[in-house]
Parts: sequence; structure tokens; C-alpha cells
Amino acid sequence: MLMMLKLKCFCFQLIIITRTCWYSVLNMPITSNGNGLLFRQLFHKDTSTYTYLLACTKTNEAILIDPVIDCVERDLKLIKELDVKLVYGLNTHVHADHITGTGKLKQALPCCKSVLSDKSGGKSDVYLGHMDSLKFGNQTLEARATPGHTNGCTTYVMHEHSLAFTGDALMVRACGRTDFQQGDPSTLYESVHKQIFTLPPHYRIFPAHDYKGFSETSVAEEMKYNPRLSKSKDEFINIMENLNLPYPKRIDASVPANLVCGIIDE
Amino acid sequence: MLMMLKLKCFCFQLIIITRTCWYSVLNMPITSNGNGLLFRQLFHKDTSTYTYLLACTKTNEAILIDPVIDCVERDLKLIKELDVKLVYGLNTHVHADHITGTGKLKQALPCCKSVLSDKSGGKSDVYLGHMDSLKFGNQTLEARATPGHTNGCTTYVMHEHSLAFTGDALMVRACGRTDFQQGDPSTLYESVHKQIFTLPPHYRIFPAHDYKGFSETSVAEEMKYNPRLSKSKDEFINIMENLNLPYPKRIDASVPANLVCGIIDE
Repeated sequence: MLMMLKLKCFCFQLIIITRTCWYSVLNMPITSNGNGLLFRQLFHKDTSTYTYLLACTKTNEAILIDPVIDCVERDLKLIKELDVKLVYGLNTHVHADHITGTGKLKQALPCCKSVLSDKSGGKSDVYLGHMDSLKFGNQTLEARATPGHTNGCTTYVMHEHSLAFTGDALMVRACGRTDFQQGDPSTLYESVHKQIFTLPPHYRIFPAHDYKGFSETSVAEEMKYNPRLSKSKDEFINIMENLNLPYPKRIDASVPANLVCGIIDE
Repeated sequence: MLMMLKLKCFCFQLIIITRTCWYSVLNMPITSNGNGLLFRQLFHKDTSTYTYLLACTKTNEAILIDPVIDCVERDLKLIKELDVKLVYGLNTHVHADHITGTGKLKQALPCCKSVLSDKSGGKSDVYLGHMDSLKFGNQTLEARATPGHTNGCTTYVMHEHSLAFTGDALMVRACGRTDFQQGDPSTLYESVHKQIFTLPPHYRIFPAHDYKGFSETSVAEEMKYNPRLSKSKDEFINIMENLNLPYPKRIDASVPANLVCGIIDE
């Protein structure tokens, strides 16, 4: 009888503990992994652009890398639902294929500052130079200058999580074009080999675009399998100079808008 | 002098160690995280379908969840590059919007077996029932029957990694239709609430589709923010019965092919 009573008591305690944990987790910032970093990869189908929402789960401070103007409503809703505070909207470079969402995000969330490279030639609240750091909560990004697609192209590295956001400098089995803006194949080759391929081989690479349905790659994979950048510098330059790609459709609208972080008269 | 010699010797050893690690990592199976699981999310843009490549980094045995016939060449190339051995091609259900890649994958890789639910009504090498397990290398999937979109809909859970692949049963702020095949809103509501919403709230949810650019969600988020499934059962049924969606474009070609795991005369 006493045994039964003890068992009932234990079950009741267990239910209370389970329910407490359940609800407390529901109201906590929702994290994708247990390492203090909330990570969400978002996609804009029309331009095959990846946007990254990153947040410190300790302080709730968040950043968006390469937001797209067409997706600002979606991103604002997600930011609200995940209960994070957007402190920075970063662009890896002055995009030629879409207008950045940074301007619209700043209008909706005055706490958000725009971030660009000091070599971009664009307007921004914060400028990052080579090897500068940017903090959000307890998380740190390292800015590595990786010009070649444009002068201001920057790769953002998070050493604590073995992640690199490479923009258009390095993409899955591909790379950005070097035939417009300040594109230069020799510079791009040097950037990728000196700033990205020198990262530890297991580092995960998240690009600004993908056109074949890949979501990520790694330093080791691209060193081995990138059909352009695994080649010699001369071969790379030859490949890039003979791509014969069409003039980018949205460049005339995108570049002027992105030079002012997407704040345009609509 | 002796001090300098020792220092030089140490530097030389360090270079050797670094180079050894570097190359050994390059030739090792390339893993996305340090927990023994290689994970890659792949996307088919035309049908907004997600395919998942999962591999045990200890044994290199791999599986594909919901491969798409149009992407088989891409997937085979990635499998080869990552040096993994495909042992299973799984489908979360008999899809109505695209033809599965399982048949073509089996033709290219005879070691690969097709997997479907025992309630699917389709042909397959392996049938999984509710709460059956499937092993690849040191990794285990638990099959949870989650009917309602179709009779054979299955959610694959990996408890060790807090992951669930929910197919069309639960999607980011959405769910699969219940107005064709064996669709039934009451059954779907019960499936999601009993088999997915009872998982720990931090479990990451990876769906078979997304149409707004989301790549993942969590149990906690969908319990709180899913505009259909966070409602009462009666409200859910009412929503699902009034969606008035058009007849699926590819259903007449897809369903017969998927009932035989994509092995069709082309």
C-alpha cells in the first residue's frame, strides 16, 4: 500500500517536472542547436539568394546576413516569432541581382544598423575592414576581405562554430562572376585561396546563392571539387574570362539601390 | 643557441603535424558536424521539394530521404564526392507532385534499397511499420506513422540528433493537403498532435517542401505558430475543408510512378 502511494507520488512529480520543462522551453528563445547560436537559412527563390538569420540565444541579439527586399515581411515575422532583437543587417557585398532588405528592416526596426565593407563604396551605418570583428550578444563574426567579385566582398567567419558566410566569393562548386562591377579573376583567386582555403578544412561554407539546390559545402570539399577554384590561377583566369554570361537582368536597378543599403524611393 | 635550435625543431614538428591533419581530414568523409552524422539538405526548385542526404561518418553508410527523379544526377555526384555508400532511398510517402528518384538511384547503385511505409500501398524493397527502426551505419531512424495527407505518410525521427523528417504531415507554418489520395484532416490532426507534437520541443523539424524559403522549424515553434495545427481539431478540419486548392498539376503522372518507387518506362 505504501509502495503504491510512493509510486503515485513519484508519477505526479514526474508529470509536474515534465510540464514545467515543456512550457519553459516553449517560452525560451528557440534555438537550432545547443551551442548558443540560433541559425536559420532562408531562401529567395526568384534570385536563388540565401539569407541567414543568426542569434545569440543568451542575449537574443540577432543579425541578418544578405536580407532580400522582397522577403522583409517574412523575415520580420520570423524575428518576432523567435523573439530575437535584430541589431545588424549585413551585406556580404553590393549585390547586382537583388535589392538588399537592410533599408526596409531599419525602417521597421530602428535598433537595426546596416553593415558593409569599408571598400564597398556604399553607404552604411557600420563599416568593416579586413579582420575587423562584429559582436552580437556573446557571438563574434570576423570580417575577411575577399574582393574579386566586387571590391567590397567580405566573408564573415564564426570560428567558434566553424562557419563561414562567403557571399559570392565562393559558392557550392562555383564562384561569383568577375565580368562586371569591380570584378577581377586574379583578385578573386587570391582572396579565396588566402582567406577561405586557409580556414580549417571542416569549416562549413554558406554562400549567398545556389542555383542547383545545394545548401552548404565545406572548405575541404571546395578545395578538392570546385571546378574553377581547385585549378591553377592561370586556368582559373582563363575559365572566368571565357564564361560569356549574359548581362545581369537586375543590375541597373540593384546596384544603385544597394549602394545606399536598399533605402530607395519606391 | 640551444634554445633557438629547440624552437626551430618544434616549429618543424608543428608544420608536419599540421600538414598531416590537413590532408587526413581532406581524405576523410566530410562531415557537417562533429557528432557522427553528415547532414545535407538539398532542394528541387520546380516542386520546392527538400531531399536529405544523411550519412554515418564512422561507416560511410548513407541514406536519401525523398529524392527527386530530376535531381538524381546531382545527388549521385554528391554521393561520389562525399565518398559515402547509399544503402537506402526512403520516401516519406507516395508523392503527388514529383516522381521519386529512388528507382533511378537503385539502377545506378545496386546496393541501395527502396523504403516505404507498410501502409503506403506502394512497391518497395523494405517496408516500415509504426515505430519500426532503420539503421545505416551507427545511425538509427525511428519510423512514426503520421497518416492524414496519405495513408502511408511517415515521420522519420533521429532521437540522438533531435531531428524529425516530417514529409508533408507537418511543414513550416503549414501542412500537407488533405483533399486527395487518402487525405483526411481529422487523421492528420491526430497524427501531428500524437506523433510529432509529443516530441521534445527543441527537436528540429525538416519538411519535404517549403514554398516561402524556410528551411527548417522546431516542434515548439509549430505548436505555437502553425496557423492550422495550433488550433483546435474542429477549427483545423474547417480550415482544411475550405482551402479550395486547384487539382495538383503533376498528380496523374506522379502517383502511379511513385507507387512503384519511381521505376517507370521513360
